[in-house]
Amino acid sequence: MTEVTLETAKALIAAAEDKAVEIDVPMCVAVVDKGCNLVGFHRMDEALIASIDIAQNKAYSSASLKLDTQTIHEVSQPGESLYGLGNTNDGRIVTFGGGFPLKDEDGTVVGGVGVSGGSVEEDREVAQAAVDVFENA
Amino acid sequence: MTEVTLETAKALIAAAEDKAVEIDVPMCVAVVDKGCNLVGFHRMDEALIASIDIAQNKAYSSASLKLDTQTIHEVSQPGESLYGLGNTNDGRIVTFGGGFPLKDEDGTVVGGVGVSGGSVEEDREVAQAAVDVFENA
Amino acid sequence: MTEVTLETAKALIAAAEDKAVEIDVPMCVAVVDKGCNLVGFHRMDEALIASIDIAQNKAYSSASLKLDTQTIHEVSQPGESLYGLGNTNDGRIVTFGGGFPLKDEDGTVVGGVGVSGGSVEEDREVAQAAVDVFENA
Amino acid sequence: MTEVTLETAKALIAAAEDKAVEIDVPMCVAVVDKGCNLVGFHRMDEALIASIDIAQNKAYSSASLKLDTQTIHEVSQPGESLYGLGNTNDGRIVTFGGGFPLKDEDGTVVGGVGVSGGSVEEDREVAQAAVDVFENA
Repeated sequence: MTEVTLETAKALIAAAEDKAVEIDVPMCVAVVDKGCNLVGFHRMDEALIASIDIAQNKAYSSASLKLDTQTIHEVSQPGESLYGLGNTNDGRIVTFGGGFPLKDEDGTVVGGVGVSGGSVEEDREVAQAAVDVFENA
Repeated sequence: MTEVTLETAKALIAAAEDKAVEIDVPMCVAVVDKGCNLVGFHRMDEALIASIDIAQNKAYSSASLKLDTQTIHEVSQPGESLYGLGNTNDGRIVTFGGGFPLKDEDGTVVGGVGVSGGSVEEDREVAQAAVDVFENA
Repeated sequence: MTEVTLETAKALIAAAEDKAVEIDVPMCVAVVDKGCNLVGFHRMDEALIASIDIAQNKAYSSASLKLDTQTIHEVSQPGESLYGLGNTNDGRIVTFGGGFPLKDEDGTVVGGVGVSGGSVEEDREVAQAAVDVFENA
Repeated sequence: MTEVTLETAKALIAAAEDKAVEIDVPMCVAVVDKGCNLVGFHRMDEALIASIDIAQNKAYSSASLKLDTQTIHEVSQPGESLYGLGNTNDGRIVTFGGGFPLKDEDGTVVGGVGVSGGSVEEDREVAQAAVDVFENA
């Protein structure tokens, strides 16, 4: 896909929800567009309340920095080059995995997806399901 | 309906989107649950960026105050009893129409819906479509 | 023009600065793109410090609401339909003139310009000079 | 140079943009004056959205602390003397390289420049190009 429309966001969120059901962890899922503005958000029943914010900010972080939030995790550690990155942008940068940039066929970042609710591994697995839909549609 | 699950929120948002398409105004639509926490949000293509915040906060305002935001509009005017209400809650109270509380069969408020993107009349019409689904399902 | 690139923003800001020099009022001038994100900002020598924020938020307001901020001024007055609009979006909505949306040939809003530093009339005149460049280039 | 006027800021930003083009990394560039208030800001096309905030705050950090943000990086690490510095000033202090103070001939800090968009090394290289213009003009 080349652009994050609402139709696209719905498809990505649905794929993430399917994966979340499969691994049996209720999740919050958010999708932002190229301008890093929210397009769609769903909170599955019993998902963590804190994840409402975290999922949205993971999507924002990935789109605005054009990075997997797992990479942000690594480069923002004490002693690493971008230590303190999580304090910028009014606290909207999330420094752990679960957010991925969405890229078009040319590799240009055109949005981001963020998932929160489980372990980082679970969040990443669910977010990846959304990315797969975007890249393969 | 008696509770704002994600399934319910999706149905309400879909009804709002249908109405928005019918009147040809792209909208942002948000649904919150009894705890006033976001359950679902969709931004239709070309909807106002400012409406991302406004729709969510209309839903929050309606659920947290158990009031139609049009009523908040009236009681928060200069000289009226709740003048300044829009300055409370970290600026999350919206003082114009487009948000409705969601009530179960007993009239208990169990959530809220907020719509933003058009005139107040248009926002209210679209939000009402969501309320109708909730009350008649 | 059809898109707010940095080159475009520079041309708009330059036109605004020329007009500001002409009327002899130092101004802050800001330009945002379709996603309502800042592209360029200049503060002329001796311009008001408060105008740094106001100019940027006028540009944001105009692009995110697709409205002249003078119109926001009118519709957000006590008793008017959007009373309290200035309290939304974390206080980023400016409720007085000096911000204009930027529209492409089809009339689609693709950005915004905001000017602050003088009277509302002066701010509007300077912002209009930028709009003229956008619409006639 | 002895003072950060808009004319000066434009020259510094232009030098930074030239360097950014040379190394082929789109950047956000910000310049603040002695009062630590923004004078000029440019976002190059395709620069990271997160860098809008980071570039401005690097300039602010450097001018307000009279330090290279790379030095802030070092002294704010866990266990170091100014650990937690990045949490002060409403989150405006950036704790990684890319911001430099601007000094007049006497070594007095009269402003700051901040660059964001690439690696810390790239950001520093581009910011240095602006500093060179200031110091050698």
